[in-house]
Amino acid sequence: MADCAFDVVGIGNAIVDVLAHADDAQLRSLGLAKGVMTLVDAQEAERLYGRMGPGMECSGGSAANTIAGVAALGGKTAYMGKVKDDQLGQVFRHDLRSQGVAFDTPAAIDGPSTARCLIFVTPDAQRTMQTYLGACIELGPDDIDADVVGNAQVTYLEGYLWDPPQAKAAFRKAATIAHAAGRKVALSLSDPFCVERHRAEFVELVNDHIDVLFANEAEITSLFESDFDQAMRRLRDHVEVAAVTRGAKGSVVVAGGQVVVQGAESVAGLVDTTGAGDLYAAGFLRGFTQGRDIATCARLGGLCAAEIISHFGARPATDLGQLVAQATFVTV
Amino acid sequence: MADCAFDVVGIGNAIVDVLAHADDAQLRSLGLAKGVMTLVDAQEAERLYGRMGPGMECSGGSAANTIAGVAALGGKTAYMGKVKDDQLGQVFRHDLRSQGVAFDTPAAIDGPSTARCLIFVTPDAQRTMQTYLGACIELGPDDIDADVVGNAQVTYLEGYLWDPPQAKAAFRKAATIAHAAGRKVALSLSDPFCVERHRAEFVELVNDHIDVLFANEAEITSLFESDFDQAMRRLRDHVEVAAVTRGAKGSVVVAGGQVVVQGAESVAGLVDTTGAGDLYAAGFLRGFTQGRDIATCARLGGLCAAEIISHFGARPATDLGQLVAQATFVTV
Repeated sequence: MADCAFDVVGIGNAIVDVLAHADDAQLRSLGLAKGVMTLVDAQEAERLYGRMGPGMECSGGSAANTIAGVAALGGKTAYMGKVKDDQLGQVFRHDLRSQGVAFDTPAAIDGPSTARCLIFVTPDAQRTMQTYLGACIELGPDDIDADVVGNAQVTYLEGYLWDPPQAKAAFRKAATIAHAAGRKVALSLSDPFCVERHRAEFVELVNDHIDVLFANEAEITSLFESDFDQAMRRLRDHVEVAAVTRGAKGSVVVAGGQVVVQGAESVAGLVDTTGAGDLYAAGFLRGFTQGRDIATCARLGGLCAAEIISHFGARPATDLGQLVAQATFVTV
Repeated sequence: MADCAFDVVGIGNAIVDVLAHADDAQLRSLGLAKGVMTLVDAQEAERLYGRMGPGMECSGGSAANTIAGVAALGGKTAYMGKVKDDQLGQVFRHDLRSQGVAFDTPAAIDGPSTARCLIFVTPDAQRTMQTYLGACIELGPDDIDADVVGNAQVTYLEGYLWDPPQAKAAFRKAATIAHAAGRKVALSLSDPFCVERHRAEFVELVNDHIDVLFANEAEITSLFESDFDQAMRRLRDHVEVAAVTRGAKGSVVVAGGQVVVQGAESVAGLVDTTGAGDLYAAGFLRGFTQGRDIATCARLGGLCAAEIISHFGARPATDLGQLVAQATFVTV
């Protein structure tokens, strides 16, 4: 697989994050469900933004964050997602390309504006996300570049693609192309409520179409409507690799007969957990596409997750390559 | 003056900052003059943005940063400046209003987009700014709301207003209204190269029209083409209060016969000096409009400057009011 043009291609909702500090009382007064991602329409997004504190804008989008992370680690990456040709769309494109990511999905010329995610960050570093999908609803199968997907070791897809109307067709097209070319397909389950919205289809995907799964505890127990141990057994039987993050407890990875339990990295100052799962996937996939052992992949995931939660925003703020180079790896 | 509707009204270039990490080699390869603010046209801004790393967008603008700081400290504030009615203009307006600032200058409907400042932050926390003035060139005397200026204890103006074509007329109109109402006029000299571009007019302003001056060492020595001590004597003779910041050395304030030398606050992790002078002015003006002594004003300025340089961006990231409440003030 070393001759692939790309290590990882990501496909996802192309979103600019608007981050602001908030407290629990404000979440309650706005009627927001803490810690999860909620979809909102343009009018509700406008209402919430009007009541949100001063913000900071940062490119986001789950798969895009992962791809930016893989690129920051030195991987060859591409991305497919839909922005509008507006200022925030230009910001989103710039932030991926300037990280070395190939991103050529044409912008929408008319229709809704570039997607925004209003992120309320509470003093406990928890993030509460309200997403207006905007131009993401325009992503469809025609936006999948078969040449890119066929030439990427891993095609990485976010579960959030099940929310806009045509993106799941794009998702299935990409997975089919990838498998036909002998490549791997990876999926992130994204969010427990996203799993709830699309459970039956996600179970079918995991059972039959996914090679590498990323999820957290809440997502897999929701997916299989079971406890953690049962869910891990189901995953072991159906996917090649399942990497399940457990917050401050680190991660558990099952891969065939192998189980790796990886403790979390220590974080000096926990600021904002936005992007923790996305960057875990970035570190893991970087190791995976380099052919490293599963324990090292998990460790790389933990290191990248620890970096992203130490600051505001879900794109790396420090040199991830250097961070990883400085870490000590114990070879078992 | 306690019955004023506003403590401080700020007038300035309404700008959204785009911040990215860079190193000295990148500054050299882009031909940028480190540490200063350079004006660029739309084409050059586009070229530089294309070569800039992944960014983070944050509302900026010198006077707007100061006003946001005064508001965060609990002051009653207003702002006048020109954005376009585009996404970044909406972001800029939101970020001031959500801080409690009255900001009603109508947005430009056509013409150039909302102004952007590309800020390259080097590992030494120094910021190098490339400003595209965009819609700011539309600010003119008609945008000055005489009711607001006449009802503000202090009208605060940034020297950068001398760069766009009609803003200086707006500046002079505001100063005239303020003085006619018995209010104070404050000016920030903004940048040593800005002083160089407009030296003769700035000297005339300082000599005859300004009550409270904010500047740093490089700006006042450039203004008077003299050494620091001579410049301080000139200021003492011409303005009621002159607060001069000296980076890590703190600040010196002359007010009539009084001279206060204030050491800098300690900063745990110096990240980005963008907005240091703006937030010094915020703390100082908050104290000044509360009738506090000059030493306390200088201390408040130092506290706010220390907060802003401990993180990315030039708008407060922590609760300034709480920060100030927790500080110990020694009454002399």
